Amino acid sequence: MPTIRYVLIGLGNLGRRFCEIVQEKDADLRQRYDVDLRLVGAADSRGAAYDLQGLDLADVVRLKTSGESIAAYPAIGKTGWEAKALIEAAEADVMLEASPVNLPQHAEPGLSCIRTALEKGWHVITPNKGPLVVAYQELHALARSHGVKLRYDGTVAGGLPALNIGRRDLRGAIIHRIEAVPNLVTGYVVDMLSNGLTWDTALARARAEGVLESDAAWDLEGWDAAAKLTILANTVLDYPAQIEDVTRAGITGLAQEELVSACDRNFCYRLLARAERRADGGYNLSVAPVALGPDHPLGRLGSKQLGIVFHTDIYGTLTTIIEEPDPIPSAATMLRDLLDIYTED
Amino acid sequence: MPTIRYVLIGLGNLGRRFCEIVQEKDADLRQRYDVDLRLVGAADSRGAAYDLQGLDLADVVRLKTSGESIAAYPAIGKTGWEAKALIEAAEADVMLEASPVNLPQHAEPGLSCIRTALEKGWHVITPNKGPLVVAYQELHALARSHGVKLRYDGTVAGGLPALNIGRRDLRGAIIHRIEAVPNLVTGYVVDMLSNGLTWDTALARARAEGVLESDAAWDLEGWDAAAKLTILANTVLDYPAQIEDVTRAGITGLAQEELVSACDRNFCYRLLARAERRADGGYNLSVAPVALGPDHPLGRLGSKQLGIVFHTDIYGTLTTIIEEPDPIPSAATMLRDLLDIYTED
Repeated sequence: MPTIRYVLIGLGNLGRRFCEIVQEKDADLRQRYDVDLRLVGAADSRGAAYDLQGLDLADVVRLKTSGESIAAYPAIGKTGWEAKALIEAAEADVMLEASPVNLPQHAEPGLSCIRTALEKGWHVITPNKGPLVVAYQELHALARSHGVKLRYDGTVAGGLPALNIGRRDLRGAIIHRIEAVPNLVTGYVVDMLSNGLTWDTALARARAEGVLESDAAWDLEGWDAAAKLTILANTVLDYPAQIEDVTRAGITGLAQEELVSACDRNFCYRLLARAERRADGGYNLSVAPVALGPDHPLGRLGSKQLGIVFHTDIYGTLTTIIEEPDPIPSAATMLRDLLDIYTED
Repeated sequence: MPTIRYVLIGLGNLGRRFCEIVQEKDADLRQRYDVDLRLVGAADSRGAAYDLQGLDLADVVRLKTSGESIAAYPAIGKTGWEAKALIEAAEADVMLEASPVNLPQHAEPGLSCIRTALEKGWHVITPNKGPLVVAYQELHALARSHGVKLRYDGTVAGGLPALNIGRRDLRGAIIHRIEAVPNLVTGYVVDMLSNGLTWDTALARARAEGVLESDAAWDLEGWDAAAKLTILANTVLDYPAQIEDVTRAGITGLAQEELVSACDRNFCYRLLARAERRADGGYNLSVAPVALGPDHPLGRLGSKQLGIVFHTDIYGTLTTIIEEPDPIPSAATMLRDLLDIYTED
């Protein structure tokens, strides 16, 4: 049974949950896929730990659940050991990179970690949009030149396999239009407003539940959706878009009476990301709040649902919706990508 | 640019349309995927033609559109040349098998053609349920022992990538439940009945449009849905079901007044295929007409839509729906499978 040695960068919402998933499924994964997943190194913002014999997932989960750093890992944890330095020092087969997005800034430390891992000849898996938005072409070229895989199915719509469907299942198609609702928190906030809650209450509730990031504008002004659309365009449409190419409007300009009135008419506002094919083969990209009617494929999305619609020439119109009540599906995309690299169809 | 030589068995609804798709997309496929697809042999129920230099897709399409056999192909067409004999005689890399299902009988000639092609070391692609239902394990073992791929993404829900999503994108998950509406014609007939048409009129209309097969019971009594569920169970759930394991009820027992009344309440009857995980890890499989409410993920399917819902442990609940107004998406699954074998992610 092949041992897959992986380093995990970032032990927050997604990284810790990934550890929980693999811990729970270890025996099942060995039996079904004939793989032995071994966490050999892990880093968070305060430190790192490394052991080629493997870290104990239960210990990692316990530390992070109690608010401690991986630096407190028994015997081998080191305070101040940065992620990039860990990668440089480690021996492994693959890196899972789940550190914060840090856009519209520098996408660090994710970007440097991914560069370093690819240069070491490791496969890289990341649900982190930042590095892909900043350096899509560079990172793909780096992966190609080192003969390794770069997978990031979790960057676009949580656990919904938007990139896999678009890239694999629509092979050979011309995609006339993509419509996506890739951001959860804006839909959640809009639904609260539609139900009469004030902006202040709605934002406070989203923040209290941990679904609204500290930089609220990133979500509310449509930057997150624009980043996801940029990755979709590059990956699925082969259209080399930059995030600046996305015409963008957020939800903060929406009048509450309009939301309530739309809701009464069975319409549902969502921050819709769209790619429309132009006559020249390129795409117009936009993010804007749109009132979706009950007959629209995404017109009845729940507060915890994301969706995407592909309008194609030969595969009809394909809609996929995910109900994602917690971040587990987003964390599980790292397992999807990992097994995809290491197991045969 | 690698040349992929393929033999196409069956030139009906799907086979002919596949030729049309590839004919139209030839230049685009070369450019995007760096492949040269060459049809070297083709067979229908009346004869076959073979030329290692390639058949002209335009000629094949013209013959079939005008109701002729491939046996009339200029210079090389032969009347009475059977598909299996063509495969035995031909040199090729892959077979596309799109002959009639022929269940609940023998699944021939598809089954023998697939066996022969796999034994010759060809990859096999088929949207034909018959051979998979009759000989799932045998055909997979044969493909493994010859080191070739057996792909059949078009067998379950037309152009909807149900098998790809279930097998790849849900890797590592436990699937608690699958709900699928995999049969188009029963939904179409039910909707006509709900709108007040008589059984006779509804069936006549479905037949006239070519969506109801000559053996109407195959669709109406739920055999088609049961066959598709059997393939889903084997492929996605690793559950070695036979079609006889599916508890089955068709739509012919439905009272029209109940359909009309359900419709008035915004409920929509569909022939629902279900797999429910048991405590022992196996699955209970059933096909039955069910009134789906507007809040069910498949509760608002149109007359030309198919859908599937995966209830999972780590990927949330994933729903995919296809709007498939004609058989082109079903035919295009052969292109999906072909490019999937020959192009890198």
